[in-house]
Amino acid sequence: MAKETQFVEQIADINQDFPKWYTDVVLKTKLVDYGPVKGTMVIRPYGYAIWENIQNEMNKRFKTRGVENAYFPLLIPMSYFTKEAEHVEGFAPEIAVVTVAGGEELAEPLAIRPTSETIIGTMCSKWVQSYRDLPLKVNQWCNVMRWEKTTRPFLRTSEFLWQEGHTVHATEQEAEEETQAMLEIYKEFAENCLAIPVLTGRKTEKEKFAGAVATYTMEAMMRDGKSLQAGTSHYLGQNFATAFDIKYLGNEGSLQTAYTTSWGVSTRLIGAIIMTHGDERGLAIPPVVAPVQCVIVPIAARKGGVVEACETLKEKLENAGIRVTFDNTDNSPGWKFNEWEMKGVPVRIELGPRDIETGKMICARRDTLEKSEASLENAVEEVKALLADVQKNMLERARNRRDERIIYADDIDGILAGVEQGNFVKAGWCGCRECEDKIKEETGATARVFAENETAKECAVCKKPAKHVIIYARAY
Amino acid sequence: MAKETQFVEQIADINQDFPKWYTDVVLKTKLVDYGPVKGTMVIRPYGYAIWENIQNEMNKRFKTRGVENAYFPLLIPMSYFTKEAEHVEGFAPEIAVVTVAGGEELAEPLAIRPTSETIIGTMCSKWVQSYRDLPLKVNQWCNVMRWEKTTRPFLRTSEFLWQEGHTVHATEQEAEEETQAMLEIYKEFAENCLAIPVLTGRKTEKEKFAGAVATYTMEAMMRDGKSLQAGTSHYLGQNFATAFDIKYLGNEGSLQTAYTTSWGVSTRLIGAIIMTHGDERGLAIPPVVAPVQCVIVPIAARKGGVVEACETLKEKLENAGIRVTFDNTDNSPGWKFNEWEMKGVPVRIELGPRDIETGKMICARRDTLEKSEASLENAVEEVKALLADVQKNMLERARNRRDERIIYADDIDGILAGVEQGNFVKAGWCGCRECEDKIKEETGATARVFAENETAKECAVCKKPAKHVIIYARAY
Repeated sequence: MAKETQFVEQIADINQDFPKWYTDVVLKTKLVDYGPVKGTMVIRPYGYAIWENIQNEMNKRFKTRGVENAYFPLLIPMSYFTKEAEHVEGFAPEIAVVTVAGGEELAEPLAIRPTSETIIGTMCSKWVQSYRDLPLKVNQWCNVMRWEKTTRPFLRTSEFLWQEGHTVHATEQEAEEETQAMLEIYKEFAENCLAIPVLTGRKTEKEKFAGAVATYTMEAMMRDGKSLQAGTSHYLGQNFATAFDIKYLGNEGSLQTAYTTSWGVSTRLIGAIIMTHGDERGLAIPPVVAPVQCVIVPIAARKGGVVEACETLKEKLENAGIRVTFDNTDNSPGWKFNEWEMKGVPVRIELGPRDIETGKMICARRDTLEKSEASLENAVEEVKALLADVQKNMLERARNRRDERIIYADDIDGILAGVEQGNFVKAGWCGCRECEDKIKEETGATARVFAENETAKECAVCKKPAKHVIIYARAY
Repeated sequence: MAKETQFVEQIADINQDFPKWYTDVVLKTKLVDYGPVKGTMVIRPYGYAIWENIQNEMNKRFKTRGVENAYFPLLIPMSYFTKEAEHVEGFAPEIAVVTVAGGEELAEPLAIRPTSETIIGTMCSKWVQSYRDLPLKVNQWCNVMRWEKTTRPFLRTSEFLWQEGHTVHATEQEAEEETQAMLEIYKEFAENCLAIPVLTGRKTEKEKFAGAVATYTMEAMMRDGKSLQAGTSHYLGQNFATAFDIKYLGNEGSLQTAYTTSWGVSTRLIGAIIMTHGDERGLAIPPVVAPVQCVIVPIAARKGGVVEACETLKEKLENAGIRVTFDNTDNSPGWKFNEWEMKGVPVRIELGPRDIETGKMICARRDTLEKSEASLENAVEEVKALLADVQKNMLERARNRRDERIIYADDIDGILAGVEQGNFVKAGWCGCRECEDKIKEETGATARVFAENETAKECAVCKKPAKHVIIYARAY
């Protein structure tokens, strides 16, 4: 048996060295491990279970929009990428290429998909014939590959898992509505399932998806004040429909070019959970997606009846649909408390001989670390209520923390000072690329998203009249 | 609207041209489409939904064995394959290789996984330190790539989806038990979920997995009498543990080499469903995995109250957990009957004005095409009972059909005649590779599986005393 260790001591101080804290947490809680090829990760069972919970919640939401899951091939002929000019420019530098297969040099090299607009566009061109075939809405859960120079588990890896939804519509308006509807679904999901508050809106031309007419994003603030792009929804206009010949015979008998959208979230979301809710003790996982929602730790486990009572309780909670673990290992209760806190389990139940006698249990919540006594008989209701409250509180807390750190600035110095102190900074923008570039150059911050419905007098850089307000931040 | 068409006329005759029938069915029911790269397939929503149902059922079963899902990288350094001599020999000819990534030639070429023993072995070597870390049981649902010359949707494609389970054990006995337990789970799943009867047992040395000590298979008979290897469970002994250095500190303090297993089923199972249950009308999908278990077809839909009654019924069935569709399109009932029969939906409900008046509905089952009257009020119970009976009957029918076509032969001529008539043929075998090769050469049949506990006098080829009885068949 491993010697008892205070896990908390093994994690770097979150306030002193956030990047090291992140790496310590993802490795020590066994969310992830490094793969043998540079920039790849192994998603271990504890991390993958979060992803499965994300998938379940997302699938429910996709279904309400009439989106169906499907699977498209991994390998895409390189020539497909060149059909949409902006798209190839954006993705070509990151593509991994298969040149040999079955012992032979391939006539045409094949790309491992970095995203699937090109191949799905090709198939949709075949499937869409008449307006009656529209709208067409498919989604796939799959792996994609983007060769990255600097990588970090979940945040940026050469291979990652994601979902990519693709829809085809008869009209511009319908496609735009779909783009917005998916953004709304992402936002609702991020807030209600991951307890992560997000700012949503449009990206600048510079930051948009290669090939999109417009990209909409949800941006989340991490504990260090940096932004994480947590999901995007792209209105593709007719760019891909033209390039891949997605045409339909309209109601009135003429051939029309369709409008498309695409939207995706990835295993990055797990990184967002870690960096939104984690603290000096380690992870804190929101109940809705937590692999283990409740852990039962026996106190004085050798005393008669304790193990049996824990097992009965476990079964009761399990039957009520709660994801529960009974930690019956030989470690001490204190060691177990530390370990399960580090693993971010939302609720811990402590059950000892005296509790059993009095029909009570001690509940400790991960978010506030508060302990309370609860009725053993009503354990199901008690735990459910506590989980709901933890979920709610985690969102509120994260929202308050973020809102305190959204500030305004008038000039580049203000933006620089703001982001250095870990803020999102709102500032006026004239709309030109030069000013956007200059801010990035001088502050390391990028334009994360338009602050819609807000106005400013002048551009923080050139002082010309501001056309927009932009939220600037350093970003993952 | 598409012109009304008798779909049945569009499918090749199952008795005249089985391969064409298969292709017609998979394409016309929209299970699948051809991908742009040769040998790849797009799994369309109707096909992918079957796969999702398979995943759900399998995941439940894996959980009972303590297997946890995880995700390992797609790309494996080529050098890993050479660490296990038999393994590299078996897989090298089929590997797709990435040689360029991020715009640069890679120092070491990377294989797209054809299977993941090598990379999972590498990780397990790191994760397994002590006997306390064992057994270790992981599974991944993922895509794999094997470059094939001749391909057919679901049955053999260069990329396919599968699950691969990998376990590490302290002892030989435990690993062997795990191998058998997974084979049993596969068999139970195939029979109870897919309604496919399977023969299970060991493969010959020639037919085993490259790198295994022993491969156990489940073999299913398709409508044309050919066999389909529907799942395999491999006892890997210490072959991979030695090659990848999976060692643990034993209870008694000495370093030991572990024992491993691996086991998998793939999207081939969808091919098995099609070729086991399909008939001249198209697909017949067993209820447990059917994307649509029940379709409601309105009769005289324009009559007042019919659409409303169908919608009420749909909601009722849906709330009871039945996967139900209400076909409210403009096509005629006859057209709909054909279409949904082709798509293999297990139960069809017809509901017209007279039925509603008398509180009845007509239920048609896909397996026998029988129609019966049932109470509309008890629709949930009626449909559930019918689905259960269809499920049961499909297995029985497939089992009877198969059992009638397992015959014995004494010599090569007998085997040849047997397989040409679409049978599985049992025959004695001396145990030598030459005789096994000769049968394949002269009959096109391969040794599918040992018929354990059976005895024969002599080898069908050399006439020497038989050590085993083998089930021979032509195979997919």
